[in-house]
Amino acid sequence: MIVLHHSPQTRSMRSLWLLREIGVDCEVVERPFDRSLRSPEYLAINPIGRVPALEIDGRVIWESGAITEYLCERFPASGLGRAPGDPERAEWLIWIHFAETLTQHGAALTQQHLILHEESMRSPILMKLEPKRLGKCYAAIEKRLEGREHLLDGGFSAADISVGQALYITRRFAKLEPFERVAAWYGRITARKAFRASLPTAGSALLYEKDFYGPPDG
Amino acid sequence: MIVLHHSPQTRSMRSLWLLREIGVDCEVVERPFDRSLRSPEYLAINPIGRVPALEIDGRVIWESGAITEYLCERFPASGLGRAPGDPERAEWLIWIHFAETLTQHGAALTQQHLILHEESMRSPILMKLEPKRLGKCYAAIEKRLEGREHLLDGGFSAADISVGQALYITRRFAKLEPFERVAAWYGRITARKAFRASLPTAGSALLYEKDFYGPPDG
Repeated sequence: MIVLHHSPQTRSMRSLWLLREIGVDCEVVERPFDRSLRSPEYLAINPIGRVPALEIDGRVIWESGAITEYLCERFPASGLGRAPGDPERAEWLIWIHFAETLTQHGAALTQQHLILHEESMRSPILMKLEPKRLGKCYAAIEKRLEGREHLLDGGFSAADISVGQALYITRRFAKLEPFERVAAWYGRITARKAFRASLPTAGSALLYEKDFYGPPDG
Repeated sequence: MIVLHHSPQTRSMRSLWLLREIGVDCEVVERPFDRSLRSPEYLAINPIGRVPALEIDGRVIWESGAITEYLCERFPASGLGRAPGDPERAEWLIWIHFAETLTQHGAALTQQHLILHEESMRSPILMKLEPKRLGKCYAAIEKRLEGREHLLDGGFSAADISVGQALYITRRFAKLEPFERVAAWYGRITARKAFRASLPTAGSALLYEKDFYGPPDG
């Protein structure tokens, strides 16, 4: 049985969405996004104490990008990967890794807005700079989507899942709406059943209880 | 001809080191790590205006992790990759992506120490938190190197290059020495000729002119 260690509204949602698209049976262990990720029990699963971690084929894989690549290779019939030698391989790799660039900015802003509770701990310059950096990233996606329905010409792939999930986090801090193609594409891919199945459920501990720019699933 | 757009002492050094290990002919275009990366000329090469960017096979690849993967697939005889299906594939992917996790913390600290010139712009909490996070990452590498000469049992690979280059940046902010196996392994891999060939040259514009913990190539 595949087991995903997951904290709602974090990077691990990327792995959950992908698993839901693949449609493979898996157990989801929801973990609060707090110090318990540093417990000896969890560090034995993921040595850096973060989510996601995926138990599969008798091993544990951590790093969300590595999980994405491994799952696409393990389930080629899903059509969500682009194998080495595929004409779209280079573009697929670019966007899979770019999702992490976006997420870095999202994580920096999450830290400022949510994790540093005291106003005096926050950095006004970062809170101003990071959304600007996000805007530059959005501009690159907007350019890529010119004349395209998805990031790759071959259709919906793990690249859309990875970048789309990153935007689910970052759109709280920098609006998508000024980027018309990005906003339309985000609307299309998040209408998918598998995306909806990766959202927090009624009993989930929420990271973004206070939302900055509209409901998280909006 | 392969062309690498490179700023000394940044992520693009990871691509340069890898190219030197592969031993393929390439042109290196050194670019200062400044606003010129946002020029229309450079944005036409890399739409997010960062380094590295690699011109190869009639296309441009950006995102350092994507470049690593593409080069290993393009030059399989180098032995630096682990192709899909290889028993070490999952571990190889983990460490290739983990290099970026390390680099994120290095980039956050570089920003605090070097880019925010004014003391009042800096965030004391981040300058304290980020080195602690690096320590937790180093502990995961230390654990992995127990009984191993390199990150993978199969020997030196792009995983060592990627994580090793990330440490070249981060060791300025969090010392390697408390982690004996990490320090010894770092010493071994940075003694390689190809690593030396990825260091700044006499005419290079330096990012880390002021070094925090000893010389950058020490």
